[in-house]
Amino acid sequence: MFDQLIRSITEETPGGIGAILMGYDGIAIADYFVPGEVLDQQMVAIEYANVLKEIRNAATVLNTGDLEEVSIRTGRYCFILRAVTEEYFLGLTLLREGNFGKGRYLLRRDLERLREALV
Amino acid sequence: MFDQLIRSITEETPGGIGAILMGYDGIAIADYFVPGEVLDQQMVAIEYANVLKEIRNAATVLNTGDLEEVSIRTGRYCFILRAVTEEYFLGLTLLREGNFGKGRYLLRRDLERLREALV
Repeated sequence: MFDQLIRSITEETPGGIGAILMGYDGIAIADYFVPGEVLDQQMVAIEYANVLKEIRNAATVLNTGDLEEVSIRTGRYCFILRAVTEEYFLGLTLLREGNFGKGRYLLRRDLERLREALV
Repeated sequence: MFDQLIRSITEETPGGIGAILMGYDGIAIADYFVPGEVLDQQMVAIEYANVLKEIRNAATVLNTGDLEEVSIRTGRYCFILRAVTEEYFLGLTLLREGNFGKGRYLLRRDLERLREALV
């Protein structure tokens, strides 16, 4: 189920080049990367797992409510990170000119189903 | 000029509660916070300056192009952080139900003018 979900999120997002379901410890449950893409998405996911952990800690300290979503836009890519459970998050990488809104929608769409499967 | 810009970004964004122009070292040039808001926005900005620095380093290591924008959504707030120069970034805090798209637009609108003023 996880593999199929990750792949469909990537393929349904215009400009989508990869998605990953990963623990905050940097270990992935499932990932899918569009063939031929030069970016080392596994490395990206590990870096962003660390960043996400820090933002989550900051959110707790600052009492701003639970962390739900982080998006990062760089010169060439967009990354959308979505908290799923206490232990896991979803990450989607798309080209900068891809459809950010669609990617965000897809990451939210199956969230409940994913949470139930992860318990 | 900075104070006025920061204030107008906050006030023109529906749900906007504060904005800050800050160095990555955590020292602010200008800030404006809507009166009566309970969130310690100075603390928020300092925490996010650290996060932003880390994301910027990750973007360099991973060769994804320069960091442009980070947005963070929590249970109660949205934070939009926008890189301005090598040393400074703009941060906008809005209520979760505020107009995220408008805030993002406003942070971009005066970017060139701001860069010229900061050189």
